[in-house]
Amino acid sequence: MPISARRLAPEERRRQLVDVALELFAENVHADVGLEDVADRADVQRSLLYRYFPGGKPDLYLAVVKEAWRRLVHRVDTDPSRPLDRKLPENVATFLDLGEARDPALRVAGQARRVDDPRVRAVVRDSRRAWAQRMAVNHLSTPDPGATVMAALTGYLALAEVLMEEWLVHRTVGREQVEAVLEGALPSLVKLARSI
Amino acid sequence: MPISARRLAPEERRRQLVDVALELFAENVHADVGLEDVADRADVQRSLLYRYFPGGKPDLYLAVVKEAWRRLVHRVDTDPSRPLDRKLPENVATFLDLGEARDPALRVAGQARRVDDPRVRAVVRDSRRAWAQRMAVNHLSTPDPGATVMAALTGYLALAEVLMEEWLVHRTVGREQVEAVLEGALPSLVKLARSI
Repeated sequence: MPISARRLAPEERRRQLVDVALELFAENVHADVGLEDVADRADVQRSLLYRYFPGGKPDLYLAVVKEAWRRLVHRVDTDPSRPLDRKLPENVATFLDLGEARDPALRVAGQARRVDDPRVRAVVRDSRRAWAQRMAVNHLSTPDPGATVMAALTGYLALAEVLMEEWLVHRTVGREQVEAVLEGALPSLVKLARSI
Repeated sequence: MPISARRLAPEERRRQLVDVALELFAENVHADVGLEDVADRADVQRSLLYRYFPGGKPDLYLAVVKEAWRRLVHRVDTDPSRPLDRKLPENVATFLDLGEARDPALRVAGQARRVDDPRVRAVVRDSRRAWAQRMAVNHLSTPDPGATVMAALTGYLALAEVLMEEWLVHRTVGREQVEAVLEGALPSLVKLARSI
């Protein structure tokens, strides 16, 4: 067993394995990433992975998707001391920057939408809702804006994902267009959903 | 070989196989549907499926996804003699009706978003764009409204899919709420995207 496998405390080790796997899943198609690749990259024995992720690849992948979304959700600035008309463009810009930089967490989150595992689907929905709550905090000063606003905000994220893809993958639109649609659509959608 | 396998002309046979497969894929998880099931249900030999779909299940599934979206796109009323303020609510209602009735084409289209095959992804995107064009015809009297409007309309469909799921799967919102968000969000999104 390589030395590195002995040195870390369990929580640290688990985090290291998830971080390494996140990079691998971001760079490759889901089906192409095996536990061997993760073990190699982390410089540990494959058996160690099963200690932390007894179900193997699906368990590890679930932890990776959770971690990717956790990182993204925490990028949403909800500082109450800053005005919304500054925070909204900056939050939009933050995510477009991540997209432009091919951020691993964003890539994993994007791919996870297409993994047909009910547990992954649940994580994606929960994460979108956590993100929606942060938008609700910014726009309505509450993390609990009611079911219609929550559904609309979750839908807005799906719209944002499509726009990012049109920009970064299909190149049909530029960053400025995506930015303007995302900044303009959110306040009116919140207002609409709130009025229902 | 059962008699039914001999009777149909090739185009008719192909359509029958796709129709039968569409029902099966709508009722089951993608991974759980095998060519045997389709052959059994269509009352043909498995080998016949390979004559029409040489690549086997992936080819058949691709044809199923195309057919499902084709049916949905053609449900969008674009009759130029009818005013938009009647067509928009009726088009929204049509799709909510399909959702409520667990329409097979709508179910297949929903599941296809989660199938990680580049060809399926391309069909989903092309189909969403075909749908977007029909919305553009209704809202802007042109099937070619420019890249920003097309991207925004494609994103709107993703938003609509999330709202349908919140209503039909998670039951967080009711039909009335989904209806009101979808009817209200579309005109303002088109207006916004057009102004960019």
